[in-house]
Amino acid sequence: MKQIQLSHGGGGEETNSLIHDLFYRYFSNDILIAAEDAAVLEVEGKIAFTTDSFTVSPIFFSGGDIGKLAIAGTVNDLAMMGAKPLYLSTAFMIEEGFAFDDLETIVKSMAKELEHSAAKIVCGDTKVVPKGAVDKIFINTSGIGEIQKEGISANNLQEGDVIIVSGDVGRHGAAILMEREGLGITGNLESDCATLWPAVDALIESNVNISALRDATRGGLSAVLNEWAEQSAVCIEIEEKSVPVDEAVQGICELFGFEAFDFANEGTCILALPAKDAPLAIETLQKLETTKKATVIGAVSMKKEGKVILHSPYGSSRYLDLPKGELLPRIC
Amino acid sequence: MKQIQLSHGGGGEETNSLIHDLFYRYFSNDILIAAEDAAVLEVEGKIAFTTDSFTVSPIFFSGGDIGKLAIAGTVNDLAMMGAKPLYLSTAFMIEEGFAFDDLETIVKSMAKELEHSAAKIVCGDTKVVPKGAVDKIFINTSGIGEIQKEGISANNLQEGDVIIVSGDVGRHGAAILMEREGLGITGNLESDCATLWPAVDALIESNVNISALRDATRGGLSAVLNEWAEQSAVCIEIEEKSVPVDEAVQGICELFGFEAFDFANEGTCILALPAKDAPLAIETLQKLETTKKATVIGAVSMKKEGKVILHSPYGSSRYLDLPKGELLPRIC
Repeated sequence: MKQIQLSHGGGGEETNSLIHDLFYRYFSNDILIAAEDAAVLEVEGKIAFTTDSFTVSPIFFSGGDIGKLAIAGTVNDLAMMGAKPLYLSTAFMIEEGFAFDDLETIVKSMAKELEHSAAKIVCGDTKVVPKGAVDKIFINTSGIGEIQKEGISANNLQEGDVIIVSGDVGRHGAAILMEREGLGITGNLESDCATLWPAVDALIESNVNISALRDATRGGLSAVLNEWAEQSAVCIEIEEKSVPVDEAVQGICELFGFEAFDFANEGTCILALPAKDAPLAIETLQKLETTKKATVIGAVSMKKEGKVILHSPYGSSRYLDLPKGELLPRIC
Repeated sequence: MKQIQLSHGGGGEETNSLIHDLFYRYFSNDILIAAEDAAVLEVEGKIAFTTDSFTVSPIFFSGGDIGKLAIAGTVNDLAMMGAKPLYLSTAFMIEEGFAFDDLETIVKSMAKELEHSAAKIVCGDTKVVPKGAVDKIFINTSGIGEIQKEGISANNLQEGDVIIVSGDVGRHGAAILMEREGLGITGNLESDCATLWPAVDALIESNVNISALRDATRGGLSAVLNEWAEQSAVCIEIEEKSVPVDEAVQGICELFGFEAFDFANEGTCILALPAKDAPLAIETLQKLETTKKATVIGAVSMKKEGKVILHSPYGSSRYLDLPKGELLPRIC
């Protein structure tokens, strides 16, 4: 079996052949091919710039792999700023002895996920480190997008805004936990890993007003809502029964004593927007496969500034806190 | 001793405090503080975009550390495109248990190196992985710069161009090897790790014509010259005795059977430019501390297309080939 050797990262002949035979083959575009120490781009107006490293374990999981995640994750960070994803960098940090076939599978998966937006890989870097210096492979993707809609911000929530979630929550975290524990739960428990730009693009095209927009990655729904409540100095009140949670996700949470609301998502976003825009937003989102389960889960009030209140179906309520500690390392 | 815990990368409370208490403290600027999923930037015209991961071992070495390297390396990639370095992302991948003090030393070193250009860190990412999943710390930096001088390219070398090196070669590779082998050679053997933008800026200001410009990182002088010869379909002829090599570097090379010309540099660049511009280029470079040893080492001919010829002081000559295999893993 062909393996990645230290020489593939050495900057000499073997590095050149890896770049030409693998990366250019799947990521090919004029800008990438012409790139020297850096890619040359033409951009207009305000741009968004973001970076994310992916260290997920296992690297292949139900619903995706580290490559799909590396593209969707960075593209989504741009989309959440109202920016059209255009240019990505990709940096591979690979353990000596890593199977070439696995690297090719990852690269193919990246190329496939790129089809869901206009983003291209325009520059890259490859490092190979000796056995034991990294666990299999880490990938960093950074991205540049052109801002299409300004003013979307965690600081912009207003009393009366409604909170929408684009799909059921906690699937990525649950899928990774399932793989890692070798649980036999299969069926529909797949990571939600997906590119959200088409959904954001559709909302922008529909002229929906958006106060805030965030993909609920590490820390899940709880982290996003708490950050918003604090940044905008408002109270966010959520109806627990309105938040969609898949049965399999709920099952895993009960088994391990976790909260689905704290679990990471990789293709599910939270929106805050004026109540009058909610019906059009829901209608727009539900037309797309990735966000077809979009639904209203709560609203913004001034009841308790900086806090998130969860109302149970039984009439009681409690604070939903920012997750503490590390529930699951290496989920993304 | 305070250590980095998995929870510092979990996306919850501990991550927030690491970001605010450490990263914002040293990297603080308006764009970074305002960044949400991505930083918002205003750029004009053509930009250069690059990425690089740093996996160097040891992380602290004579003349620098992984933090200094992560800033200088990415800033230099932009500078080599004639681009003024403006915006950087930084992504930390940290092993659980890493000393907080060491992280602070690295972050301080990054902040200090940023002072040598106008570049700012505008967005970031932190991942903490369990013990053994990464060796101490990897850092990815991606960068954006505004192109000030177009047309610098590996494809642009012309017959009659001269080749200039900005300083003595192989110091970074030799310094890392020395640290790793625990050799007692000290004195002036320090990595050349440095930001080259001030030198490039001075050349642009002096209106020096530049055909090609490249920092001689992995693969050293040999890799750059071979790439240029091939890309521009020219012959590059180098006078061996004209290439400055420090005595300590030469000593280490002889001890281990390496070639100084293959060794990595992290603050030394190679220039190809019309012969008539050479005196002004040398004068301009020699005014700056980092490039004070700049000197002409050869010229472009059509003797043997795609090849680099090394002329020895004894009248013999040989091809200088692209380095093969991995001389030294984890040098950058």
